[in-house]
Amino acid sequence: MKANKQNNWKEKLHEIIYEADTPAGKLFDIILLLLIITSIILVMLESVEEFAAKYIDFLNAAEWVITVLFTIEYIARITVVTQPKKYIFSFYGVVDLLSTIPKYLSFFILGSHSLIAFRALRLMRVFRILKLARYVGESNNLIKALRASRAKIAVFVFFVLIVCVILGAVMYIVESGQDSGFTSIPRSVYWAIVTLTTVGYGDIAPATALGQLISSIIMIIGYGVIAIPTGIVSVEYSKNYKENTQTIKKPTVKQIRTNTQTCSNCLETDHDNDANFCKTCGNNLH
Amino acid sequence: MKANKQNNWKEKLHEIIYEADTPAGKLFDIILLLLIITSIILVMLESVEEFAAKYIDFLNAAEWVITVLFTIEYIARITVVTQPKKYIFSFYGVVDLLSTIPKYLSFFILGSHSLIAFRALRLMRVFRILKLARYVGESNNLIKALRASRAKIAVFVFFVLIVCVILGAVMYIVESGQDSGFTSIPRSVYWAIVTLTTVGYGDIAPATALGQLISSIIMIIGYGVIAIPTGIVSVEYSKNYKENTQTIKKPTVKQIRTNTQTCSNCLETDHDNDANFCKTCGNNLH
Amino acid sequence: MKANKQNNWKEKLHEIIYEADTPAGKLFDIILLLLIITSIILVMLESVEEFAAKYIDFLNAAEWVITVLFTIEYIARITVVTQPKKYIFSFYGVVDLLSTIPKYLSFFILGSHSLIAFRALRLMRVFRILKLARYVGESNNLIKALRASRAKIAVFVFFVLIVCVILGAVMYIVESGQDSGFTSIPRSVYWAIVTLTTVGYGDIAPATALGQLISSIIMIIGYGVIAIPTGIVSVEYSKNYKENTQTIKKPTVKQIRTNTQTCSNCLETDHDNDANFCKTCGNNLH
Amino acid sequence: MKANKQNNWKEKLHEIIYEADTPAGKLFDIILLLLIITSIILVMLESVEEFAAKYIDFLNAAEWVITVLFTIEYIARITVVTQPKKYIFSFYGVVDLLSTIPKYLSFFILGSHSLIAFRALRLMRVFRILKLARYVGESNNLIKALRASRAKIAVFVFFVLIVCVILGAVMYIVESGQDSGFTSIPRSVYWAIVTLTTVGYGDIAPATALGQLISSIIMIIGYGVIAIPTGIVSVEYSKNYKENTQTIKKPTVKQIRTNTQTCSNCLETDHDNDANFCKTCGNNLH
Repeated sequence: MKANKQNNWKEKLHEIIYEADTPAGKLFDIILLLLIITSIILVMLESVEEFAAKYIDFLNAAEWVITVLFTIEYIARITVVTQPKKYIFSFYGVVDLLSTIPKYLSFFILGSHSLIAFRALRLMRVFRILKLARYVGESNNLIKALRASRAKIAVFVFFVLIVCVILGAVMYIVESGQDSGFTSIPRSVYWAIVTLTTVGYGDIAPATALGQLISSIIMIIGYGVIAIPTGIVSVEYSKNYKENTQTIKKPTVKQIRTNTQTCSNCLETDHDNDANFCKTCGNNLH
Repeated sequence: MKANKQNNWKEKLHEIIYEADTPAGKLFDIILLLLIITSIILVMLESVEEFAAKYIDFLNAAEWVITVLFTIEYIARITVVTQPKKYIFSFYGVVDLLSTIPKYLSFFILGSHSLIAFRALRLMRVFRILKLARYVGESNNLIKALRASRAKIAVFVFFVLIVCVILGAVMYIVESGQDSGFTSIPRSVYWAIVTLTTVGYGDIAPATALGQLISSIIMIIGYGVIAIPTGIVSVEYSKNYKENTQTIKKPTVKQIRTNTQTCSNCLETDHDNDANFCKTCGNNLH
Repeated sequence: MKANKQNNWKEKLHEIIYEADTPAGKLFDIILLLLIITSIILVMLESVEEFAAKYIDFLNAAEWVITVLFTIEYIARITVVTQPKKYIFSFYGVVDLLSTIPKYLSFFILGSHSLIAFRALRLMRVFRILKLARYVGESNNLIKALRASRAKIAVFVFFVLIVCVILGAVMYIVESGQDSGFTSIPRSVYWAIVTLTTVGYGDIAPATALGQLISSIIMIIGYGVIAIPTGIVSVEYSKNYKENTQTIKKPTVKQIRTNTQTCSNCLETDHDNDANFCKTCGNNLH
Repeated sequence: MKANKQNNWKEKLHEIIYEADTPAGKLFDIILLLLIITSIILVMLESVEEFAAKYIDFLNAAEWVITVLFTIEYIARITVVTQPKKYIFSFYGVVDLLSTIPKYLSFFILGSHSLIAFRALRLMRVFRILKLARYVGESNNLIKALRASRAKIAVFVFFVLIVCVILGAVMYIVESGQDSGFTSIPRSVYWAIVTLTTVGYGDIAPATALGQLISSIIMIIGYGVIAIPTGIVSVEYSKNYKENTQTIKKPTVKQIRTNTQTCSNCLETDHDNDANFCKTCGNNLH
């Protein structure tokens, strides 16, 4: 009986931490979201030297508070899951761990600058909470359009890369001997990408007449070519849009899943709204 | 009888100042538009040092003329409205006040540079007059398409921002120790936005090979991704266009409001063409 | 009879110079096109100092040859037209004159640098010959789409300009006191346009944290907003395309004019293929 | 009988080298692809001075290995074809030769820097293998859309170029006497292209107020005009897409060729899937 009670307690906590269908679950997600954003702002401020020098004590204290809260959350996440290993070695499990430990590591590795990378990783956690936005429907068509055009955009990007390597090699030869920054082929390829995407930093820019002529041709090509991905996505998006409008009119079998049920055993999330058991491991979802 | 006459005079002035359906009302709007544009040009010229030094007396005199004219207009606007408080604390009421007082304030705050901000605010007043352009129908579809895609573009912008923060943190670590401008994470995030939007100032540019490699990847992504808002707006706009073409063919209940009636009591503006009374406060519109 | 013969001679020359339906007319246009392009290349080369210093005699001689040829053409154009004044004061008449006289003027105005502007004007003449391209049909839809979206793009550009002025004023105040190039509001507005159109020279770039924050917001807005003209043109172009496809299927009254008939009296050019008399002045076209 | 056997051996090798329908043919293509990419990476690394200085021996050895392998492949390609001359003087034949000989030439031309250009040519060979991607169908619509819009984009690019030359000449006059980089008309035209395509290096940027005003106008025009190629490609692509969807529904005569048959006599590649003889020279394909 006691085991059942404890189980019950675990189940409730699981619902709060992993799902967002109950008020408590929503509140937990909102608090976590604010905490993540706060921690990211702190990381950013800490990198500003003047600020860090002034408020070092405050930043240190705040970092400890966040680390402790993340530690509690991490332990809670492990506790309420029936197969802790599955969580620990899942993508979000690793992200959670890496975004918690930097402050502990700073005891051993003094003043380690690169720990900041792990702390910035915390932003990845935002996606877990925002994953729910997927169900809003707004961005649904967008994701479909992107997925449908993925292969075409990949072909396009691949082609652009080949063109950039060839142009980079040509410009390297044309501009060699000049003090215009084309010191190696990889740098020239970098310049070709900067130019073709119309970013144009200007840190490397052609100095010879021939180099400027070739650049002009590249830019005009880039100008005409930038239209292609736009065309692809527009058409795919337009197509998805029409299909969706048609399916809304007729009754449809395909159901949009709006729940946030998460199996406490295998962490599977994509369940039907009326599902009672996990479709992957058969675990009871309620 | 006298009160009625005075009321009548007020009503006429109200029609001239707030509406644009009569010739006098149109003339008033055009003069006001020219006055606003003149005042903005003067503000711009005053900021050019060489010019300001030469023509200081002319600029000072012109500024006084404009201030006096704006003051008269402001007082007139208060007088003709039955509920002056409602106007004074409305958005345009505050803008009108703020764009009038800077010259008066310059008596107390000598040489205050930041007063120029209030004077530039005058440009906001242009929108009140151009509000009428809304009825032209030209920009109607455009606004609808933008409103319909608002949510999607917001999701997109939010996603781009998260990507920029992560990339900024990565570049901060990669380029640390170099003299390439990545001195803090906020600056690196600023650089990521400059790059992803293909602006590319070049004030901050990667110096290491790894930094340039990451930049190249960002640019190629940005190149593919720039297609998305275009796709969204195109599809929404195309959809609105089709709907509009269809509604023109059939008789439709939805009526486009082409009048500029403004209630002299509550300043409500969105009235039907054949409305006799304000739909919000019941005040007689004629 | 002699008058008739001479008239006949004039008519033939008129056909050669102004029209392109006969082999001689086509040949004349091609020679003129080559001559214009050659003269433009010479102007460009003359502006390159190293080149000009070396080949000054060659450039001078070539310029004289071109000037003489253009003079002959100009006189011929006046001769064959029945109303010379109409030609002389037409747009292309003025362009022809201005692109011929610079070399003659150089006698009076020694070493005048700005005469180069008149010589560059010659490029405008290319449009007269390329006007025929209008009949090719390729660019027909494109021009229609652009004309149809003209009003909308004007509204859009106007709105962008207002935003740039407001942003310029804000940045001028924010960045004042910094050595970042925001020395006056007009310069700041210039910067805002450079940024919003994603050109991003980097000659003026924000140095303060607040300035960089505002810039980032501008860029993100510009990124979302760049979609709008694309959407407009795409939809208009797509619409024109569909209409054209439909009219091709059914017999249609609207006829595409493929001739280059030019009235020798009033220089009207837009005649039906089977027209015998000028639709504007009634002059015989043959 | 022996001749037949040898022929058989040649035929098999031909199938392996020129086609990709058999497992051996696919393997050959993949190995060749890796070899080309490796050789390109080596060329790129060799151009990085620090790297080249350290690993000169390794790079030299690797280049020899690749040269030998390419030589063997080149000889094999000549051997298995019945008309070697046709291959040698074909586009890919020339590319193959030029990408093989640089190392041999380095004996005669010591330290020749420009040989790197020939070695970079190797990347062109990638297209031969990727040519097969054409049959994947993914990029099929894309290529069709581009081909269909080719003429329109050419008209557009030509128009942009004329505008750039005129603007370049204007800016050259406006900015003359300034130290802002507009030293000749060709350079100013280069700047106009850099600006209109929104690349914006900043190596040349207007310094005068008038120059900045003209630049602003150019940028706003460029901003509106960038929409045009996008519109063209989108519409063409959308049109192709619809046509394809319709042809898939109905049975169609037009067949998509998915084989990689290459005639061993005349190197023709575009054969029907069930073709037994070359459609150009009548040679047996099996």
